[in-house]
Amino acid sequence: MYKYLNILETPSDLRKLKREDLPILAEEARDFILDIVSTKTGHLGASLGVIELTIALHYYYNTPTDLLIWDVGHQAYGHKLFTGRKSDFQSLRQLNGMSGFPDRTESEFDAFGVGHSSTSISAITGMALANRLKNDKRKHLAVIGDASIVSGMAFEGLNHLGDTDLNVNIILNDNNIGIDPAVGALQNHFNNTSSASKVDFFEALGFNYIGPIDGHNFDELFKAFDELENLKGPNLLHIKTIKGKGYESAEKDQVLWHSPGKFDKKTGIISPKKEKLSYQKVVGDSLIELFKDNNQVAAITPAMPTGSGMVELMQLYPGRVWNVGIAEQHAVTLAAGLATQGITPYCVIYSTFLQRAYDQVIHDVALQNLPVVFLIDRAGFVGSDGATHHGLFDISFLNSIPNMAVACPADENELKELIEMGAHTSTPLAIRYPKGEVQSLNFPSQNTEIGKAKTLNKGEKTAILSTGHIASNIQKAIEGLDFSWYHFPFVKPLDLESLKNIFENYSHILTFENGIKNGGFGASILDIANSNNYKGQVEIHAYPDEFIAHGTIDELENLAGLDSISIRKRFEELI
Amino acid sequence: MYKYLNILETPSDLRKLKREDLPILAEEARDFILDIVSTKTGHLGASLGVIELTIALHYYYNTPTDLLIWDVGHQAYGHKLFTGRKSDFQSLRQLNGMSGFPDRTESEFDAFGVGHSSTSISAITGMALANRLKNDKRKHLAVIGDASIVSGMAFEGLNHLGDTDLNVNIILNDNNIGIDPAVGALQNHFNNTSSASKVDFFEALGFNYIGPIDGHNFDELFKAFDELENLKGPNLLHIKTIKGKGYESAEKDQVLWHSPGKFDKKTGIISPKKEKLSYQKVVGDSLIELFKDNNQVAAITPAMPTGSGMVELMQLYPGRVWNVGIAEQHAVTLAAGLATQGITPYCVIYSTFLQRAYDQVIHDVALQNLPVVFLIDRAGFVGSDGATHHGLFDISFLNSIPNMAVACPADENELKELIEMGAHTSTPLAIRYPKGEVQSLNFPSQNTEIGKAKTLNKGEKTAILSTGHIASNIQKAIEGLDFSWYHFPFVKPLDLESLKNIFENYSHILTFENGIKNGGFGASILDIANSNNYKGQVEIHAYPDEFIAHGTIDELENLAGLDSISIRKRFEELI
Repeated sequence: MYKYLNILETPSDLRKLKREDLPILAEEARDFILDIVSTKTGHLGASLGVIELTIALHYYYNTPTDLLIWDVGHQAYGHKLFTGRKSDFQSLRQLNGMSGFPDRTESEFDAFGVGHSSTSISAITGMALANRLKNDKRKHLAVIGDASIVSGMAFEGLNHLGDTDLNVNIILNDNNIGIDPAVGALQNHFNNTSSASKVDFFEALGFNYIGPIDGHNFDELFKAFDELENLKGPNLLHIKTIKGKGYESAEKDQVLWHSPGKFDKKTGIISPKKEKLSYQKVVGDSLIELFKDNNQVAAITPAMPTGSGMVELMQLYPGRVWNVGIAEQHAVTLAAGLATQGITPYCVIYSTFLQRAYDQVIHDVALQNLPVVFLIDRAGFVGSDGATHHGLFDISFLNSIPNMAVACPADENELKELIEMGAHTSTPLAIRYPKGEVQSLNFPSQNTEIGKAKTLNKGEKTAILSTGHIASNIQKAIEGLDFSWYHFPFVKPLDLESLKNIFENYSHILTFENGIKNGGFGASILDIANSNNYKGQVEIHAYPDEFIAHGTIDELENLAGLDSISIRKRFEELI
Repeated sequence: MYKYLNILETPSDLRKLKREDLPILAEEARDFILDIVSTKTGHLGASLGVIELTIALHYYYNTPTDLLIWDVGHQAYGHKLFTGRKSDFQSLRQLNGMSGFPDRTESEFDAFGVGHSSTSISAITGMALANRLKNDKRKHLAVIGDASIVSGMAFEGLNHLGDTDLNVNIILNDNNIGIDPAVGALQNHFNNTSSASKVDFFEALGFNYIGPIDGHNFDELFKAFDELENLKGPNLLHIKTIKGKGYESAEKDQVLWHSPGKFDKKTGIISPKKEKLSYQKVVGDSLIELFKDNNQVAAITPAMPTGSGMVELMQLYPGRVWNVGIAEQHAVTLAAGLATQGITPYCVIYSTFLQRAYDQVIHDVALQNLPVVFLIDRAGFVGSDGATHHGLFDISFLNSIPNMAVACPADENELKELIEMGAHTSTPLAIRYPKGEVQSLNFPSQNTEIGKAKTLNKGEKTAILSTGHIASNIQKAIEGLDFSWYHFPFVKPLDLESLKNIFENYSHILTFENGIKNGGFGASILDIANSNNYKGQVEIHAYPDEFIAHGTIDELENLAGLDSISIRKRFEELI
């Protein structure tokens, strides 16, 4: 079917082609990726945008001996396609299948795992330093794209690498967009000024600068690579590409086609999603509602307006919502600054990316006890993005911070209530919720109060204690059983009074949460049980102490024993 | 005694002086600070370097209505002196006394708490956005100095602020040194190039650039302030200062005089410290020993060669030790890159600063299961630097990371053994140790093995389980008592076999650690006790769930009930 792609397995095959064949290969690769992503779902635009670059790099350089890092990793489908994984695409982002990101355990061509952005300059610098120590002459290449260059971490890498004489090539894939359009002063600079002054920016940081060139033009790419090879010291090659290149719909609406879901390749029509209301939509709508009546609240997103459901909010209140780019550290301390002046900021960050701002949460927000509301998105398993993106650690890492209140709503209604409560908080408040479809559990109506548990079911002997969205699985599992069920909207502060009562009345307690066991909700319950001299059994159900890869959220919850069927099974054993 | 200083309390008094009086006031302020620091100890050089700037800012601007942030906070002694806290200097950095850093709870002039560096641009941007929403015309000023500009977080702040039209003034105090001399490409650029191309760097980021000017010259400062007030949008004023200015010894050896301890103001002779061997010296010496025989190991410090005891190591092995500046995120991922190529990096970071690289520890090191050795300095209380600098959270935040081994040596010998073990690790290993003087506990000789506890004392009924350097307090407290004592060099993995044995033989277990209770060592012991159906008592002794300010380490351990006297008292209650 494909003239070249069919006979290619690895880059050594690729290198046998003539240069003039490469544009045809690029077309074939785009077609292949469109076939896969249209039926399997995945990241589309970013990989389409770097097909020529991907081919050119593997053609010109001697991978995997020469080390090549893709940052962020969602640009790497073409890379995977040309490095022996063509047949694995059928299992893309599925349980036990190929990862959507580069992964060192998957291929020797994946020099570094790259899920979070902006890590490549640091990693390639480390590799180059190591290979200089070993007197190993392999080459070192990092592609940094999709607005990753603006993260502070990338700057730290540039500031060190630019102070060395290492022969490292950084390729800046400037496509003016991350998942949402790129923002910030540096991107303005790339867009607005002449090539001459761009030289100054990177040369100020110690780099030889080449570019900008057309990243879809093989001749320009190879000419630039030749130039790089003639230079000493760290180099920065600035290429311009179009995200979604070669597929009209994807070029036109780059945000929509970043990760479009299933679609008809021929017509470019995206399959209607049987989408029910998402937690993200609830957040966006709740904030809109709140902003209407209260001009003392604001919101911040580090580069995720679309993913976090904030697009409409931003359009309605451009003066009170800030997309700061991939800059989680800044986002959190910006929020702290706002809070000192009496504005209550909602800082909306994915759980996994909040790890980037852990110190700022402690040092700038919690230590100063400032009323910042964290809306922590993608809590628990996120599904097909896998190990780099799951939100497993946030309950634990927030639970140990003094002054922090940590809330895990059970469903849509509670999330709404908590967001409203946030506007009146005088101390830091974190609210975590998962990716995707909301649950509406129709609990008996009870106000959500800080540090108060809710009784959802009354039974004998055994008490189920849960926090967060695992409530929906428990609701299914508990049907018809004579167990008591207490939901804790707050992991911190815990409801000590209710707990005392529970310890007095039940000889067996089971706790459930969507987070890692260590330092989590169950661990806090156990600690209080112990302080209260509780002599019954406490059984903690939480995520295990291991990294868990991709799959559907249900599959992963099942692996962790936290899907409704596993929970039901455990419940039945107890009867 | 002082002509002007004696009659000044607040900046409104200062503003009544004539401009020509200000140099005399600067002299008096230097003299005052020298008097205090020479007898009370504290940060000297940084504050001496910004005396003129401090006076000029409070003279020209209307603080505290105009908001002023000092970054990093150790430059702010002059600021404290001119803002109503002259008499508080007697209690500088002492228990219940004045903090060594700006602190919002201490003064309305302290707009933002600044202990960790590079937070000011984000915070002042948040303040300016808030005040624009409130239509409040106050002015916004941040001084960023002592090499803080190179941290990624500062870049994230510049990248956002430079994309706004906020009238914010960032004053870059360029003194070419942090605690150690500044490093990195940007600092090279400041040092080597003409003023013209510096314009380009900051103008590329959307700033009006003024400078560089002499930061010790009042006329130049006021002229620059006038210029700032005539510009619209974010401004960057670049000033050059000399750290330690006005005190000859401090100007000459800026590293030594950053925080010199007690000294004779007249002679400039620093009081000999009754310093015994420090943990930091042990780390430096152990690494030197290791580097001699093994050329596959390397070391990294983010801006702390002196504090971390690595100066000699750097001199001996300049090609294998990298000071990357204030760049913890980069430091950790650089280490990950090194590890992928078979070099084992020792990443030496203060506990409190490792919070800045939490995501990199999870995403780049642990998820990829790379053999990076973290030497975590300043674990537990650090004493006079206070709440921003204590290392309270690291056991908890590392304990919840899969693949991580977490070691807490009891004393000098164990620390040495663990550092040696690190060279052979195939997975991530964290080793935490405190500030200051080593303990040599002369335990009965037992090899340190991963995941193995050591029996230090054999008694009846009650078992003491401890990890880390609290061992020295326990050793004093346990003298003559018939308790068993088990020391766990590893919090993770725990010694399950020994624990099973302990659960079988003791009805009362007390755990001790120098870290926060939630998610810590005691919590892990309790979890395993619970899984083993242990029905005895577990009593966890750890730091409470609150931020704790400055004082001596002994005073703070006493507040937390973890000094030897408090422990002894508890032991005696149990007899």
